[in-house]
Amino acid sequence: MAKEITERGENYSQWYNDIVKKAGLAENSAVRGCMVIKPYGYAIWEKMRDQLDKMFKDTGHVNAYFPLFVPKSLFEAEEKNAEGFAKECAVVTHYRLKNDPDNAGKLIIDPEAKLEEELIVRPTSEAIIWNTYRDWIQSYRDLPILINQWANVVRWEMRTRPFLRTAEFLWQEGHTAHASKEDAIKEARQMHDVYAAFAEEYMAMPVIKGFKSESERFAGADDTFTIEALMQDGKALQAGTSHFLGQNFAKAFNVTFSNDRNENEYVWATSWGVSTRLIGGLIMTHSDDDGLVLPPKLAPIQVVIVPIPKPDPALTEKAEAIADALKSLGISVKIDTDESKRPGFKFAEYEMKGVPVRLGLGMRDLENNTIEVARRDTKEKMSVDLDIIVPYVEQLLEDIQQNLFSRAQSYRDEHVTRVENFEAFKDVIENKGGFVLAHWDGTPETEDKIKEETKATIRCIPIDAPEESGHCVYSGKPSNRRVLFAKAY
Amino acid sequence: MAKEITERGENYSQWYNDIVKKAGLAENSAVRGCMVIKPYGYAIWEKMRDQLDKMFKDTGHVNAYFPLFVPKSLFEAEEKNAEGFAKECAVVTHYRLKNDPDNAGKLIIDPEAKLEEELIVRPTSEAIIWNTYRDWIQSYRDLPILINQWANVVRWEMRTRPFLRTAEFLWQEGHTAHASKEDAIKEARQMHDVYAAFAEEYMAMPVIKGFKSESERFAGADDTFTIEALMQDGKALQAGTSHFLGQNFAKAFNVTFSNDRNENEYVWATSWGVSTRLIGGLIMTHSDDDGLVLPPKLAPIQVVIVPIPKPDPALTEKAEAIADALKSLGISVKIDTDESKRPGFKFAEYEMKGVPVRLGLGMRDLENNTIEVARRDTKEKMSVDLDIIVPYVEQLLEDIQQNLFSRAQSYRDEHVTRVENFEAFKDVIENKGGFVLAHWDGTPETEDKIKEETKATIRCIPIDAPEESGHCVYSGKPSNRRVLFAKAY
Repeated sequence: MAKEITERGENYSQWYNDIVKKAGLAENSAVRGCMVIKPYGYAIWEKMRDQLDKMFKDTGHVNAYFPLFVPKSLFEAEEKNAEGFAKECAVVTHYRLKNDPDNAGKLIIDPEAKLEEELIVRPTSEAIIWNTYRDWIQSYRDLPILINQWANVVRWEMRTRPFLRTAEFLWQEGHTAHASKEDAIKEARQMHDVYAAFAEEYMAMPVIKGFKSESERFAGADDTFTIEALMQDGKALQAGTSHFLGQNFAKAFNVTFSNDRNENEYVWATSWGVSTRLIGGLIMTHSDDDGLVLPPKLAPIQVVIVPIPKPDPALTEKAEAIADALKSLGISVKIDTDESKRPGFKFAEYEMKGVPVRLGLGMRDLENNTIEVARRDTKEKMSVDLDIIVPYVEQLLEDIQQNLFSRAQSYRDEHVTRVENFEAFKDVIENKGGFVLAHWDGTPETEDKIKEETKATIRCIPIDAPEESGHCVYSGKPSNRRVLFAKAY
Repeated sequence: MAKEITERGENYSQWYNDIVKKAGLAENSAVRGCMVIKPYGYAIWEKMRDQLDKMFKDTGHVNAYFPLFVPKSLFEAEEKNAEGFAKECAVVTHYRLKNDPDNAGKLIIDPEAKLEEELIVRPTSEAIIWNTYRDWIQSYRDLPILINQWANVVRWEMRTRPFLRTAEFLWQEGHTAHASKEDAIKEARQMHDVYAAFAEEYMAMPVIKGFKSESERFAGADDTFTIEALMQDGKALQAGTSHFLGQNFAKAFNVTFSNDRNENEYVWATSWGVSTRLIGGLIMTHSDDDGLVLPPKLAPIQVVIVPIPKPDPALTEKAEAIADALKSLGISVKIDTDESKRPGFKFAEYEMKGVPVRLGLGMRDLENNTIEVARRDTKEKMSVDLDIIVPYVEQLLEDIQQNLFSRAQSYRDEHVTRVENFEAFKDVIENKGGFVLAHWDGTPETEDKIKEETKATIRCIPIDAPEESGHCVYSGKPSNRRVLFAKAY
């Protein structure tokens, strides 16, 4: 297989698109901005979803399902939220087609089947869910409600890219209801922690935890917690957000409860979500010029065994014995018995697909009681004694997971730059890339101007940022801590 | 807790609605015909989905995801399919809202954001998928394609009922592509078998396997295989269908492949699906006047332990030991430590929710080294030695699963009636209910007239129906086997 993808250094954006295509992850569809998630891409999403779902359930959440459509009158009830999403809404106006009288075999909208009220295809579900919660909540005994939903949502974005920004995407959205502000904030922070743990422990993608400036908050939130990752081109990716919604939705939908002193109060809310966008982050954190690189914990195939030069009963028998032993440890293994392709072609294919460990087994190996082990992350090859191959591979998968995280963390750490003035700020953003830690005067006006001049936005105010006196890099006004800027996806 | 649900004998339809509501399975939403699937209902769907997903993967299928929207020009390409769904399509016509200039805080459709081509919210995905398969298939080496999708679909039905018929529902749809007619038919029959096995072994719901008459086929199919179950009111429920689609979609979307003789051929197709409708079938197969009855294999909570009269350290400690031992066998257990409710209330609540086994543990039980076991299916109570409670419960869950199936099968078998003339036909359909096995002349005209006069439709032509000479109950014309009629949901 010839080198089929553009090199990162040559054209990063094309490199990304090439990997999405050549690794069989996704492709564009006939619907503008909507992608087809192909089986291999979807298998990665299944691994992510199953792990996240477990983490949500371990923290007391249950799943439910709410309608795809939001009546316009509900959609507009929480004004900030509505304003934030109004410009990118797919709207259903009719519920029937009929034969086109002028065009045999063609269909047209039946004008008599116009809906009395338009339906918005959910861009997010706060409105439909809080309208439902009103009937579920009377007393503090009904709280908290800890619900998550796995669903598709639609945001009619003008510029789309597979996984990173698509008109339809898959996600989960948690929507919780609480009796006190403290409980709601605690929940929002807990899910923020869950997202950070998932990103780092499973995706091997280091993240910076922080909260958003007012202008970058979710529309309708009082506070937005975010995890921000760094891609290899020096741009940031917002990978997951958890929102403290205050009583905004409770007020918009009149959701009150009787507290333990028998007084009526508005309910406190959170929402939190991650999406198929994470797959984009996964690709851009680890992959290289030979294709996708996957952390073992999220790889649909963790180990592939390739008989060399081709399948043969003796080789296949040994391969199956190894595969069975690995599977019994919960490791996913594929034996490639395709006789129509040569080993070199297969090697390149599994590299493209990011399979973490490849085992090559030939007749000479059998005679020597060895097997060739290739790791995808470093491309190193080792000859390993067959007697210890199973524990060796088990350990190697852990090492690869760890190495990917360390490597990404080193890169990220090298790309967090402290600057003291706007010249240096612009220089780093323009030339070095990555995150910039700089003082900011806290005003949206300064934030806007910095964005206008550099395209960098405030990614977050890091949660662990120490108090530190200084002066805003842009306005020179006093500031008491640094915030994190970057250009972002 | 007072008897809260209508009795079956009094008003079957109301009884069903009451269970859906009181067991916390689902409720109507603000969107006409769309339901909210509540956490307990969704937990049942998760159990179903996980088991079906395993069965699909065990038969070689992989999951993928295709867009929610179908451009109208693709939707209308396969004419029969388009005609079958055109009357119940939700149609997206615009992609943006704007502020209503006449009404502060309100939104209206932005007329400038009208789509050039309308988008249909998928009622089923053959069109979008076969339009995609065209690019995936060149040679016989690319076949078969064995893909399944878990998704939401929308069919704008005029009369809806929770689970049984809703405007939006959750389902899976398999879409496979094959190099030969035989392979495609084999696949359609295989999935038909998978559905029947799932219905009987997991849902404990006996089904009759057969194929549909031409007028009852899926729009666009050459053959539709179905599993038909019988509800307690004597009406049939179509519980799952698997379609042999011939080359209809390949022709509509020009999907061809080069066969092993290097000739170009149209690809052969199947599709198959089951939906949240199965939950409706589950409810109506087993439940009683005290509420939901669930087969253990699909019960989110299989065993509940209730300390009597209220939680106490000694009781809770023993309950936890039992729960741990049961959980280690893969049994899901809840200990109800709520102190605000009395045992009688809790008993009624778990009966309403269909928890298969309830264990009541009081101080006197502890002294006697016994525990009270109540099974939901028969409502029997037994005092069981604490030393054997774990294997006892394990066996009991199997017995309940088996008993529910046997009970449903007996009921079903008693309600399959052979009739020889139309008077008897009408009498059974009207008074006894259930399935009628009768001779039919094979014409859609007769089928229509029978439907018009009795509301009974041909549910299927049973696969195992023996050849048998006879005369059509309606027309008297010759027939060579009996087909299955019933009134249906």
